[in-house]
Amino acid sequence: MQRYKVTFMYDGTDFAGFQRQPHKRTVESVLTKVVNKMAKNPTPAIVIYGSGRTDAGVHALAQVAHFDFPFIIPAENMRKGLNSMLPMDMEVLKVEEVVETFHARYDVSGKRYLYRMDLGEFRNPFKRNYTGHWKFPVDLGKINQALGDLVGEHDFTSFVASGAQTRTFVRTIYEATCHIDEANDELVFEFYGNGFMYNQVRIMVGVLIEIGAGTRPVHDILRLYEVKDRRQARRTVPAAGLYLKHVYYQGEDPAHPTKLPQHQR
Amino acid sequence: MQRYKVTFMYDGTDFAGFQRQPHKRTVESVLTKVVNKMAKNPTPAIVIYGSGRTDAGVHALAQVAHFDFPFIIPAENMRKGLNSMLPMDMEVLKVEEVVETFHARYDVSGKRYLYRMDLGEFRNPFKRNYTGHWKFPVDLGKINQALGDLVGEHDFTSFVASGAQTRTFVRTIYEATCHIDEANDELVFEFYGNGFMYNQVRIMVGVLIEIGAGTRPVHDILRLYEVKDRRQARRTVPAAGLYLKHVYYQGEDPAHPTKLPQHQR
Repeated sequence: MQRYKVTFMYDGTDFAGFQRQPHKRTVESVLTKVVNKMAKNPTPAIVIYGSGRTDAGVHALAQVAHFDFPFIIPAENMRKGLNSMLPMDMEVLKVEEVVETFHARYDVSGKRYLYRMDLGEFRNPFKRNYTGHWKFPVDLGKINQALGDLVGEHDFTSFVASGAQTRTFVRTIYEATCHIDEANDELVFEFYGNGFMYNQVRIMVGVLIEIGAGTRPVHDILRLYEVKDRRQARRTVPAAGLYLKHVYYQGEDPAHPTKLPQHQR
Repeated sequence: MQRYKVTFMYDGTDFAGFQRQPHKRTVESVLTKVVNKMAKNPTPAIVIYGSGRTDAGVHALAQVAHFDFPFIIPAENMRKGLNSMLPMDMEVLKVEEVVETFHARYDVSGKRYLYRMDLGEFRNPFKRNYTGHWKFPVDLGKINQALGDLVGEHDFTSFVASGAQTRTFVRTIYEATCHIDEANDELVFEFYGNGFMYNQVRIMVGVLIEIGAGTRPVHDILRLYEVKDRRQARRTVPAAGLYLKHVYYQGEDPAHPTKLPQHQR
């Protein structure tokens, strides 16, 4: 047995999200099928552990998963082999042999998400699956002020979809930025934190864009922390604009530069 | 009756090309359905005349069509009305009321096509429907030399798919350029000419990329003009990278700045 860590990219458009579901094409099911085929369909089947789920239509620039493979294949051959069998909307970027204690989900120390919001006057057919769309004027200065309120440890109860199952709604955001991509006429948001809950990024962007448009006070986020009421955050922006950009593990994470001893994980 | 000229964009990914075909989703059939619905499905049905076909998977940044509408609607209202009914992968950019002698196909004086060739080392899932892919080194200097051989009036018999129905294979190319889009790591070709035949652009790009890669002599295009043999041009690059960028009509065309009298068209 050899444990492999794989870093891979996918266009979420034609996937019903990450997690395996009966009769649906999901990232997990496609990857599981290909890895098992490469191992000549062993019994029991090889199980894939992802760093976490992404919703239907959400993209990944660098998702991470691990699995235990019944024989040893050089990492680069594993990468090429998987890519030769994977469909065109999924591509393995990197394969690493890792210790058997590495876990793609439990060892995550941080994640980075990106959100692309098209500002064009017209709906752009080429962006329909890759951006949100906001055609009203926005004030980047206001958004930047509001982003300051997101950084730090906060209770994000108001920013979580009702279906979320989690012990605590407290998370830490290390970085929250927004810039205008002039060439593409887009607002690009980036969030780096120790974890994000179900729909959290899409709800945060919805609040930020309303602040930018002037329909919410600049510091409304501080009020939302207090009221702990999802309904007051209103809008959830479309999945199409959301990209999982990076998954951090201890030791390679700017916020967690050293690895914790195994028993403390 | 009022004749309208519409300029529209589409992502060709989910269309079986432009031309109407039974049981297939085509650009022509989708637009025809929406225009007729807007006119409350008159008998006989309104017919759409496009500037020309595009193949399955080929995109349009500005395709043009005309139709005769049974009542007069201000152009801007027509644009908004059509867009409210069109699917997300098609968007009307402009509607103009035109004289009843205007014809979207017969009056075309030139077309401009763009071809995007991804040069990335890996297959990029986000580009699979929007670019060709070439992962070997290319010499832009050689391609630029070869582009010079394309400009002018030539017999393009070697560059036409076998199914093409046309009286003559002689066409004029006014401009042929190629540049590297550093940000996206792509080669971008652009061709402006008085007309392009079936698969012509995709075959030309296939020859140019082989010249750039050094597997063809720099001036092989001159030889291909002479031999008039499609098989010697070999490769047809994927439809996904091809975009109809502009359709020119006399009077607005740099190569045909004045309108010909009606009877000379």
